[in-house]
This record gives sequence, C-alpha cells and structure tokens, in this order.
Amino acid sequence: MDKIKLPERATWQDLLKRPTLTYEDLEASARQIFKEVERTGDKAVQKYTQLFDGTRVEATAVSASEIRESAKLVSEELKKAIQTAKANIEKFHTAQKSPQRVVETSPGVRCWMEKRPIQKVGLYIPGGSAPLFSTLLMLAVPASIAGCKEIVVCTPPNAQGKIHPAILFAANLCGVTQIHKVGGMQAIAALTFGTASIPAVYKIFGPGNQFVTVAKQLATQYGVAIDMPAGPSELLVFADELANPRFVASDLLSQAEHGPDSQVILVTTSESLLDQVAVEIDIQLATLPRKSIAEKAMAHSKMILIDGIETALDMINEYGPEHLIIISEDEPFFIDGVQNAGSIFLGNYTPESAGDYASGTNHTLPTNGYTRQYSGVNLDSFQKSITFQRISKEGLMKLGPTIEVMAMNEGLEAHKNAVSYRLEALNNKTKV
Amino acid sequence: MDKIKLPERATWQDLLKRPTLTYEDLEASARQIFKEVERTGDKAVQKYTQLFDGTRVEATAVSASEIRESAKLVSEELKKAIQTAKANIEKFHTAQKSPQRVVETSPGVRCWMEKRPIQKVGLYIPGGSAPLFSTLLMLAVPASIAGCKEIVVCTPPNAQGKIHPAILFAANLCGVTQIHKVGGMQAIAALTFGTASIPAVYKIFGPGNQFVTVAKQLATQYGVAIDMPAGPSELLVFADELANPRFVASDLLSQAEHGPDSQVILVTTSESLLDQVAVEIDIQLATLPRKSIAEKAMAHSKMILIDGIETALDMINEYGPEHLIIISEDEPFFIDGVQNAGSIFLGNYTPESAGDYASGTNHTLPTNGYTRQYSGVNLDSFQKSITFQRISKEGLMKLGPTIEVMAMNEGLEAHKNAVSYRLEALNNKTKV
Repeated sequence: MDKIKLPERATWQDLLKRPTLTYEDLEASARQIFKEVERTGDKAVQKYTQLFDGTRVEATAVSASEIRESAKLVSEELKKAIQTAKANIEKFHTAQKSPQRVVETSPGVRCWMEKRPIQKVGLYIPGGSAPLFSTLLMLAVPASIAGCKEIVVCTPPNAQGKIHPAILFAANLCGVTQIHKVGGMQAIAALTFGTASIPAVYKIFGPGNQFVTVAKQLATQYGVAIDMPAGPSELLVFADELANPRFVASDLLSQAEHGPDSQVILVTTSESLLDQVAVEIDIQLATLPRKSIAEKAMAHSKMILIDGIETALDMINEYGPEHLIIISEDEPFFIDGVQNAGSIFLGNYTPESAGDYASGTNHTLPTNGYTRQYSGVNLDSFQKSITFQRISKEGLMKLGPTIEVMAMNEGLEAHKNAVSYRLEALNNKTKV
Repeated sequence: MDKIKLPERATWQDLLKRPTLTYEDLEASARQIFKEVERTGDKAVQKYTQLFDGTRVEATAVSASEIRESAKLVSEELKKAIQTAKANIEKFHTAQKSPQRVVETSPGVRCWMEKRPIQKVGLYIPGGSAPLFSTLLMLAVPASIAGCKEIVVCTPPNAQGKIHPAILFAANLCGVTQIHKVGGMQAIAALTFGTASIPAVYKIFGPGNQFVTVAKQLATQYGVAIDMPAGPSELLVFADELANPRFVASDLLSQAEHGPDSQVILVTTSESLLDQVAVEIDIQLATLPRKSIAEKAMAHSKMILIDGIETALDMINEYGPEHLIIISEDEPFFIDGVQNAGSIFLGNYTPESAGDYASGTNHTLPTNGYTRQYSGVNLDSFQKSITFQRISKEGLMKLGPTIEVMAMNEGLEAHKNAVSYRLEALNNKTKV
C-alpha cells in the first residue's frame, strides 16, 4: 500500500484514479448473446449456461421442493442471522415511505404525488466465490416493501446445476416470486426480452462482474431500466488520532478481500496513525484465507497523509467513495460537508461490514465516482412517482389566464384553447 | 382519428403501438460529434452550430447585459404569468423535501438517509418552433430548490445568434448560473466533456428531438446521468358521460399540436361521447394555426370504445400514458388503480395544459411506455441520497455476532474480522 505524504492538489486526480474499466471489448459479446436470447429464448440461455457455467440446466426455474429442501441445509445459526438482518433492512427501508401531501398551489388547484411500485423487477445475484445471500436481502426486501408484483431472481448455478441453499432460503423468506438458475449476460438478456420460462421485467437490479455490467448497460437500449452503472467496490477511510489503528486496518482489508480490483484509500491527518495502520495491515493480512486477492487490491491502494480536515473533505468529495468511514473528533464537520458518498460509517464501532450485512442500510451503492449523481438502492428505486392535479371551477377561473398567456407566447394555441373553452363555459355559466 | 369499437384484448398491443423510433442511424453522427467536441471543445461546438443552426456564435455564454436587455423585451403580462407559474412550481416541489428520520434498527444501531444536491447539472431547453420558457421553469426551479451549485442551461440560438428573451428572463429569475447558446448533439457533448467555456456536468436534463435524445443516451456511456429516455409526447383521455365533449376535444388537440409524432388516445365507455368528440375535433381543428401538425398527429390517433371501467383501467395500465386525463363518475376507481402514468388530470376543469404550464406539477415526464419504471422529473431528480450509520459499543456487542455469522457463510473472513477485533476489544474492556 503506497504511503503518500502531503500530496499537491495538482496530483490528486492521478492519485485518486480508479482502475480502468474496458467495456468496449465486451459489447460485441453482449450484443451477440442478446440477439440469440431474443431469437431462441430458453435454448440460448441453456447454451450459454453450459458454455460459461459448465453445467447443463434443463429447466431454469427453481421448484418449490428445491426451496423446501434448501431450508434443511441452512444452519439454524445462519437462518437466525439472516432473519435479524432482514428485520433491520425492513425497518430502515419501511421508514423511507414518503408521506403523501396534497399541496394547494393556488386557490382551487390541488396537486399531489403518489408512489406506485414498479410491477416487474429482476434481481441479479452474482455467483462466483461467495454465495451472496446478503445481496438478495438488500434487493428483495425493498422490492417487497414497495409492493412489486413480480420479483424475479436470476443467479448462476454451480457446477452441479444448483443454487446455494442460503440464497434460496433468503429468497423464499423475502417474498421473491420466481428464482431462475441463470447468470451472466444470458440472465440479463432473458430478463430484458423474456423467454418461455423467464419473464421480461421493467427494471433490473444488482451487482455483477464486468460481463453483467455491460449487459445491464445494453439492456437500457431495449427499454429496460437499471439500478445504476456498476464498478469495482471501494472504501475511503478518514481517520485521525481518535481512531484505533487495528480497527482501521481491518476495515481496509475487508474491502480489499472483495476482489483484486477493489479500491482502498486511507486519508489521515495523523502520521503516527498512518504508520500504525500499515503495521496492522501486514499482521492481519498474513492469516486471511483470501490473502492473495486482498494483496492484489492493496498493491494499488493508497495511504495519504494530508494537512487538515478541510483538505480531507475536499479529497473525499473529489473521490466520492462508495463507502466512507469517518473516525474523527471532527465528525460533525464531515457529516455536514460530505457531498459525494454512497454510505457513511461513523466512529470506531461502525465497521463497513455492518452495512454490508445487517445495520439496515442498503449495500447496493454507486461506485466509480457515480456518487456524484446516483443514490444507492433504496425504497424509491422500486417505485415511481405519479403526479395528480385537480382544479376546481374557481381555481381555473383564477389560474386560467396565466396558462393562456404562456401558451400563446409559446405559440401553442390549442394549449390555450383547452383553457379558453372552459373559461368561456364558466363565464357564460353554461351548464356542463 | 380512427374510431375503434370494443376491440378484442388480443388486438390491444397493435392498437396501442407507438410510432417507431429509429435511433441507430443517428448513433454514428452522435459519436462523431462527441469525438470532435471532446478533442477540440469550443471549436467543434462552433462548427456544428454553424452547420445545424445556420449561425456563427463567437462566444456561447450569454452575457449579463444580454440578460438585462432581454428583460425589456418581455411583456409585463408574460412576466407576471411566468412569475405565477414559478410560484406554483416552487410550492409543489418544495413540498417534496423529505423529512429526515433517524431509525434505530437495533438497540444502539442508528441509521438515516440524507439528501444532497447534485453539484453540477445541465438543462437542455429545445429551440425550434416554440420558445419553451415553460420547460426552463420545470427544470431550473427544482434544481434551485435542491441546491445544485452549478445550473447550466444550453439552448440553441436562432438564425440571428440570439436566444428568445422569455427564456433568458425565466433563466435569470430561477437562479440559473450560466446560459449557453448551443443546441443539438453538440450541446449534449459539451455538457458531457466540458469545453473552455461550457462546464462538464454530472447529470443532463430536458427534452429534445431525436438527435438530442440519442446524444443524451450516448452521454451515459461517458459517466453522465440523464433524467430519462425521451420519446414523442402523448395523452390518453378516459372520459364517460360526465365529460364535456368540447373540453375533451380541446385536450386531445392540445396534445396533437406538439408534433406530427404526438400520440393521442381517447378511451370511453360512451358511444355518444365518442361521436360528439369527433365532431368537436373537426370544428376546433379548422382554425388552429398549427393545424397541419395536429392533423398529422390525429391521423395515427385513436378513439376507442370499451365495455367498462375495468377494461379501461387495464388498457390505461398497458399503455402507460405520459399524460392521463380522467373525467369520470368513477374517478376514485381510477386514482386507486392506475399503475403506469406520468401525470394525471382529474375532472372537467383540469386541462392538460394546466400541468404543462402552471398548476405546479412537472411537465418533464416519461413517455414511450417508460411510465412503467420511471418517474417524471421531481425534486429528487436533482439530489442523491447518502445513508449514514452509527453503532454504539453496546449496539455492536448485540449485532456483531449476526454480522460475523453472515460474513463467514459468504466466505469473507476479513469482513468478519472487522467485527471480531472490535468485539474482542470490547470484551477485554481494552481502552480504545
């Protein structure tokens, strides 16, 4: 992990550069797979599952008996943990329901906004080295609170054509309506076009490797929405003398073990903390099962000493981290000032892994600088707003002339007429 | 306007088909313009303005004196109308501020969400046949309420290299920070990459023709967000015996005058209303200045008689109109049941043009079926959410084991360690 002391502002851009993503080479594969899935549906899905996952899946849909069986394979301890996490996620996301307020903008002009669930959503749960039942909770719980009618999960099968029982257990717990054994680009294509067995959805959620990310971007060209563009996971820790170096090191490593392309940055005003964290990292890294992954991530990560909290805040906002840990005597200064971050963890006893699993906040967050303009997944991600308005006769008598003047000045006479005919009727007391 | 009586459900898809959009032919042009603007900045902007708008613009930025001059060119009547509309839009969008709620998900685990403005936004205001100062209000007012630091407007110059004074007046009134005389694909490219005079932004808003739409989609490949994909404007009216046919005809025509590709649909349970509306349309159409445009739109529009309100609701939700007018004795049934619509206008005295200009709701709405998964522009469009969490020692003692179990079951030991080291310290009462 590089140590950088008091870097010049001019060097920040380079210093905070993220690993480059190269999507363009993958776009051709994605287009090919989309074309085939659109044309031959399940047949193409089966072909690509065989090719990429090395297993033949006769029917993608997980059956009720598979779900029942899976429940027996999950330890009671894990079941309880999943239920606790689910309860917290549920509490936090339920609190995001918006109160409905009718606003009388002018006398007799009543406007309001109502949220309605997106009827059909697809949740992509990556496979690979870890069975991410936590991601399933993070997506299915808010989808269910929002009231989405069809909640379709796609997740790649293992070499035996199976899905990890903890994922099935969590999916069943959260009211998922269908689970399909399909991953990769072919899963995203299936959710985009629909096949005989997998329904088309209106919005696709969930993380994934670069193949899935490219496929999700392509899906938007076919009228499907996605939660957000995705990149490798990242963490920035700001810590001062208040911080426990052992804790800080463990947080940095928890991020680093995600993948070799994970990004980990420590920003500190304390040179001694910086040195202690470096020592702790070496100690803790030595015994990690995913040591080789974490080492690769640490190789391109940075420990940066800066001259004060104002500089630290500027650096945080320039980088815009997905995860931000603040362990500082100046915590309120950072809470006020941070503009760009996905989720923020405050104090010595709030490790990032709490948010990854069980504090209740969502772990599906913008990366790669997208915190500048995207929110993490939340209840609103599964809803859309509809505005309503109702104008009384008196209301239109009063506001109508304003509309007429504006419409005429935009050269839209039929827009004006829609008001004028009504005003005419009202002024003539025509019975309508 | 086609009259269709009691159509079979199997024919709905065809019946409700929207005019096809062909983007692919435009993508190559967009890529070319993006490449040039990225490379040569203002020079490329100037070149394409000359080519497409037929005018040479030496400096795109509108000066303070131009803004002052423009105020003199706007009638007092229009100024007052713009101010009234602004006040209503402001009231409705200010009411969308979310209350901040701290949720204690588990004892000692406090989570909350805060909204922060997107720092830099670009607003595209189309030129063409109408000076759309109303669109400027719809975008700049919520941007300003959200607290966006840089609000950059781009709008094409006319043949004299000028911008309509009403647009400048409205922009100045709403706290826009910069206005540039540039339109089309080159404007979107400039907002994406930035030039010497036009700043790069994080999110681009606003309607536009198919060129602008394709350019906005391309911008998303360069890390910029957009409000929503756009298509031609559309209106569906459901009306029964309660409706005044003259009013209904005027609403249909106000939509039709937008453009030849506008989509207009009347759904009714009353055959006599259908016939009366058809007669009224012919009468009203005859005197419209934009008659030839409206006629083209009406040519592919539909009047559909159906057998009852349940069928009507299904048809509305299948089509998912941008604008929906409900004039019906069964209004509450529709308010409850509509899932897919952008903005809804209720009763005989709520013309769509009220929402286009001055009721207070936003007129930037999803079209082309995107109401299934997108909201119209609202205050949240200019903000993103950041989640926060703070866990007390006691909180982590209680929740920690849940996190440990989940992390181990996902095979992520460093995630577990981040909790374990802390629990160890707490259990040993180590001073930290």
